[in-house]
Amino acid sequence: MWLEDIPLGGKMVLGSFEFTEDNIIAFAKLYDPQPFHIDREAAKSSLYGSLIASGWHTSAVWMKLMIAQRYAQVDAGQESTQDNYISPGVRELRWLRPVYPGATLTYTTEPFAKVDWPSRPTLGLLQSRNEARDDKDALYYSFISQVLIARRPG
Amino acid sequence: MWLEDIPLGGKMVLGSFEFTEDNIIAFAKLYDPQPFHIDREAAKSSLYGSLIASGWHTSAVWMKLMIAQRYAQVDAGQESTQDNYISPGVRELRWLRPVYPGATLTYTTEPFAKVDWPSRPTLGLLQSRNEARDDKDALYYSFISQVLIARRPG
Repeated sequence: MWLEDIPLGGKMVLGSFEFTEDNIIAFAKLYDPQPFHIDREAAKSSLYGSLIASGWHTSAVWMKLMIAQRYAQVDAGQESTQDNYISPGVRELRWLRPVYPGATLTYTTEPFAKVDWPSRPTLGLLQSRNEARDDKDALYYSFISQVLIARRPG
Repeated sequence: MWLEDIPLGGKMVLGSFEFTEDNIIAFAKLYDPQPFHIDREAAKSSLYGSLIASGWHTSAVWMKLMIAQRYAQVDAGQESTQDNYISPGVRELRWLRPVYPGATLTYTTEPFAKVDWPSRPTLGLLQSRNEARDDKDALYYSFISQVLIARRPG
């Protein structure tokens, strides 16, 4: 699929993920060992009153679901493998609510802009708005992802 | 330490981290299982010609080093524990160069602004520029972190 083939607009569901005490602690022990991420008892006396997920964990789960969804499309023959996925970074990443154990968040993505990338004229930057919401539609997490995608030759 | 006590300017070293095939693959298997992050052989035929670290891994390592540095200051009596570290998100996160196995990146942080946070007048937002560079001073990663910090009462 070329950049030109990707429609703008339209929210696509990437998948859902249940944050649990176990997966919250497992991520945070390696990458964000603050008491309210790794210690059930200490978390009770924190501002949050409980364990909560590391913000970077909510980001890593987005990536995990994005790749799973992409590879499911490849398996279904809807997309060729694209092993050269390049991202120059993300923008406006917001952690809007604490993610407590038991929260199941559904992640969505919505492409909204195609931007020229002068240093690599064969590529263009696809910008998408990404969100994670719970089953009451409350917004927990959002950011703008950016990925360089090949333009149709010629 | 209150928001008012934190000086702006001045780059502080958070620490260094060596990305290895093993830690790159361990992160990516859980959170970003693209071939060029998890499969040495497949990575050779990718755009990158080798394994590279997931961008979210470079972010998670920043968090790990930030917390380690913070807790070292607490142990040294230079700072009280502050268990209620709140971040509303990050801005302008850039993955500027691929991080190959063997790269040792040194992470720095530099506070540059204090911003009012109208919904929580007892807090203020400290914004800091964060970077990760190799031993030749090449920039691999940057973003603006934001953390809400208590203002001195009164």
